[in-house]
Amino acid sequence: MDDSVCPGLLTDRYELTMLAAALRDGTADRRTTFELFARRLPDGRRYGVVAGTGRFLEALPEFRFDDTACESLAEFLDPDTLAYLRNFRFRGDVDGYAEGELYFPGSPVLSVHGNFAECVVLETLALSIFNHDTAVASAAARMVSAAGARPLIEMGSRRTHERAAVAAARAAYIAGFAASSNLEARRRYGVPTEGTSAHAFTLLHSDHESDEPAAFAAQVDALGPGTTLLVDTYDVTTGVANAVAAAGTGLGAVRIDSGDLGVLARQVRAQLDRLGATQTRIVVSGDLDEFAIAGLRAEPVDSYGVGTSLVTGSGAPTASMVYKLVEVDGIPVEKRSARKETHGGRKETLRLCRPTGTITEEIVHPAGHPLQTGEPSRVVTVPLVRDGKAVIDVDLGVARDLVMSGLRSLPWEGLMLSHGDPAIPTTQIPARRRPIDHQE
Amino acid sequence: MDDSVCPGLLTDRYELTMLAAALRDGTADRRTTFELFARRLPDGRRYGVVAGTGRFLEALPEFRFDDTACESLAEFLDPDTLAYLRNFRFRGDVDGYAEGELYFPGSPVLSVHGNFAECVVLETLALSIFNHDTAVASAAARMVSAAGARPLIEMGSRRTHERAAVAAARAAYIAGFAASSNLEARRRYGVPTEGTSAHAFTLLHSDHESDEPAAFAAQVDALGPGTTLLVDTYDVTTGVANAVAAAGTGLGAVRIDSGDLGVLARQVRAQLDRLGATQTRIVVSGDLDEFAIAGLRAEPVDSYGVGTSLVTGSGAPTASMVYKLVEVDGIPVEKRSARKETHGGRKETLRLCRPTGTITEEIVHPAGHPLQTGEPSRVVTVPLVRDGKAVIDVDLGVARDLVMSGLRSLPWEGLMLSHGDPAIPTTQIPARRRPIDHQE
Repeated sequence: MDDSVCPGLLTDRYELTMLAAALRDGTADRRTTFELFARRLPDGRRYGVVAGTGRFLEALPEFRFDDTACESLAEFLDPDTLAYLRNFRFRGDVDGYAEGELYFPGSPVLSVHGNFAECVVLETLALSIFNHDTAVASAAARMVSAAGARPLIEMGSRRTHERAAVAAARAAYIAGFAASSNLEARRRYGVPTEGTSAHAFTLLHSDHESDEPAAFAAQVDALGPGTTLLVDTYDVTTGVANAVAAAGTGLGAVRIDSGDLGVLARQVRAQLDRLGATQTRIVVSGDLDEFAIAGLRAEPVDSYGVGTSLVTGSGAPTASMVYKLVEVDGIPVEKRSARKETHGGRKETLRLCRPTGTITEEIVHPAGHPLQTGEPSRVVTVPLVRDGKAVIDVDLGVARDLVMSGLRSLPWEGLMLSHGDPAIPTTQIPARRRPIDHQE
Repeated sequence: MDDSVCPGLLTDRYELTMLAAALRDGTADRRTTFELFARRLPDGRRYGVVAGTGRFLEALPEFRFDDTACESLAEFLDPDTLAYLRNFRFRGDVDGYAEGELYFPGSPVLSVHGNFAECVVLETLALSIFNHDTAVASAAARMVSAAGARPLIEMGSRRTHERAAVAAARAAYIAGFAASSNLEARRRYGVPTEGTSAHAFTLLHSDHESDEPAAFAAQVDALGPGTTLLVDTYDVTTGVANAVAAAGTGLGAVRIDSGDLGVLARQVRAQLDRLGATQTRIVVSGDLDEFAIAGLRAEPVDSYGVGTSLVTGSGAPTASMVYKLVEVDGIPVEKRSARKETHGGRKETLRLCRPTGTITEEIVHPAGHPLQTGEPSRVVTVPLVRDGKAVIDVDLGVARDLVMSGLRSLPWEGLMLSHGDPAIPTTQIPARRRPIDHQE
């Protein structure tokens, strides 16, 4: 385990060399705003789901440079920079989208305000957290939407870095997954967990004439008849018969982890019903993604276990967010690199909707200059940190509710799984080029 | 930060419920072998590079269940299981491929020997580490191969989970990358780091008539003329002129992070030469993957910065390795689920080669029964852990050398970037169905 990690070193070297140069030439104290946003949604996605806000707020006070960190930096940093880092803590303000909020291209997901020194060093930490968690939550929300009322279980820990797995379970839960297999996510974040057995447990009983009945009997003895028995180690039909024989018709569920899941689910449902196990649920797993989940809508499936595609963002393993300087001493700044333009100035967001609640447009406007549209609207940007301290509580339940209400607010075509444009257009109201009257 | 992680809980719930059932029915003590392997390489890849071995060996002694962990498990585990976990530590043996070794479909990358209880609980930890690190190293090796003699710098921390970033930097370094931007990878694993500045540093100086000269002057003042100046914040030609004006013809390097990198590299090289900065190197970055790197072979590029595609495995963010029970009390076991067959029995690997050193075939044979082929060959499987203790040193330099010699040993078509079959075929010699005479 890399438990001895120095939080401040979860950083790219160039942030500290920039800091050194800025301390030396006196620009480190300039008041700045950095903005975290995505220039586009992953290929063909219609919306994204912000996740990571809570982890970022928890990480902020931990982001320090202890003796170990400073010692390792002494080789390439000057004494003044090291002295600065030794006393570092973020004392600025952060505004942004609440965790669970939908976002679109150009949405100012995070606005970090403070002097250049304290804002620039947060770049990698903020991006790592938001790019990972948002990628997972955005994929997860599509799966939740595809699954309709059926619950989804996250079981992808094994397919991603062991720490990323915990964050992925958290992000999936925010997006509406019912549970995770990850036990650390349960301890750390209160994510409900599920899971009963793997093929190994059946194979472990291979000294018996037939190992499956012995394994099922042992599992039912330990976990009760309400457990989920994995029926596809050898032959699914025999497996289901063995399962009901072991647990009785009160068997909780059977899991199918291979083969043509739709065909098998129908066969297994019919077999369970014939055996009198009419309340026994069917859990399917094995290379499911949002498209496979949608394809099983008409089949008698009760819940889905999703692994690889969830933790890898279903084709978009990173949300491609960037962290850009947009304002210095009240003056909007922007670069002009090819295809990588930034829009200068500190911003806030208003989301317009119909009287029904269906959203129609995102308006990104200069901060402190709200738009009078006359239409129903909601202010999306909220204060997250003041003077270095979080001013909102991290509550996964609240974030879950926000995702659900966000999905309900989308125009119907926004929920389509096929490639398309963002569900709503975004209008960027440009900043004036002169200092504007901030309401700090 | 989730620094308070309980290592033992980086685990899927079903491992502990299986453990509970096995402790209850007396099967927990059976001698088992679990095998970690990939059924296939990611779509069209011709080889993979094993990474994570060192991290796994470091994690093994940390994989314990402390009071906090046991408290969180008490809700669904019985007292006997909790008592077992409280005293848990892995006391078994592990054989496998050394870190940096090439692997192919079915290669037994890890063989974990011990009783069922101690082996089954390692499943998620082992898979998380190997699936992540191997995905990154496998993508990285293709980039290294595409780059030829030109150095590559890993700068993808911001595109992946903050802890995964550290492991990704380590894996890329093993695969032959020259350096990383990640400072924790430097402290923790001794990975060399690079990095100087971002566009934000230029924009920070926007109070000047022309901010780029001011920013470049400040950077040269702090970091010396050997630094790398980022020249594409506004206009590359002006940027290069400003860079040489600020640092002189001894300028270390310029970085181009946007636009058509090939065209720009040629223009910039010509401009630098005209200005007399003939030794100034050109670093390119921005959405590079192995194909883009190969496409720049003919251009005057001196080094590459690679981010997103590296940390996301360039289209294959997980190595799809699985961890399967293959032997119980000396008897091979295997499941027969559709398209998910396992080959039973404890195995070892021999790699055949021509007298030139070019590898021709991988032979996976029952452990303790080496094949007499008469051809030149190398034993790939080595002891990694005995009685719970690592028996090899973790040395990234050794792993790097192994990757390099592995790439040199591939048949030429194995290095092609296009989709294709594995570079060499693998022959699986089946285990006999009765107990075989192990050489433990």
